[in-house]
Amino acid sequence: MSSLASCIFCKIIKGEIPSMKLIETDTILAFMDIGPIARGHCLVIPKYHAAKLTDLPDDQMGDILPALKKLAKATGAENYNILQNNGRPAHQEVDHVHFHVIPKPADRGDQEGLVVGWPTQGLSREEIQKKFEEMKALLQ
Amino acid sequence: MSSLASCIFCKIIKGEIPSMKLIETDTILAFMDIGPIARGHCLVIPKYHAAKLTDLPDDQMGDILPALKKLAKATGAENYNILQNNGRPAHQEVDHVHFHVIPKPADRGDQEGLVVGWPTQGLSREEIQKKFEEMKALLQ
Repeated sequence: MSSLASCIFCKIIKGEIPSMKLIETDTILAFMDIGPIARGHCLVIPKYHAAKLTDLPDDQMGDILPALKKLAKATGAENYNILQNNGRPAHQEVDHVHFHVIPKPADRGDQEGLVVGWPTQGLSREEIQKKFEEMKALLQ
Repeated sequence: MSSLASCIFCKIIKGEIPSMKLIETDTILAFMDIGPIARGHCLVIPKYHAAKLTDLPDDQMGDILPALKKLAKATGAENYNILQNNGRPAHQEVDHVHFHVIPKPADRGDQEGLVVGWPTQGLSREEIQKKFEEMKALLQ
């Protein structure tokens, strides 16, 4: 199992830092976010230390989505976002893969929950097609 | 397999609407987003029609995260967000579970990629603990 002594999430996994644990399996841990942007905001992390999703082995992924689903239900929220950030420019603050479950109360506008900005690029079909072909080639 | 005749993503799965397909397995389809907020913005959807993550059976989830990882790599982006919205207030626009892979170019600020607003609630440890105990009870 990959672990990093200086990583705050690895310390939570090892119990060196306390947390409000919601779900634990062989491969994941779920706990409350202590700087929540909504009531019920919580996190799922793989126990395997990987900075970004692209660093996480596939065999460490199986419990993540079922846990996110259980947690979303347990928040009681009708509306919610699942968010996983990779890299500082993408708003990642701890370099250990983590998935946010963030309830979105319908009546709180931008005051609670994830605030989403959506800068549509206005790309032409041809521009999208060009990137598609590059990606498709890399996926072969 | 659950499917909904009026659902645009179910139509894409059935091939009734064309798409730029990147990955297809027995349970998921990945394709380019045609209203991208970044170059390389693409989607993973389960073939099973479910409006929200909380409606999706666990046995339909296994291919989703490995596909998101492959796609994130194929975009070539160093920084990226994985986002899955549930409900209109949470920015969901098509009522069929979909995961966004959104590259975040470091040099484009709020002009490209997901723009994240983060309204920290300033809840006390006691307030977080109270919600934790409610959720923990529901998870038993």
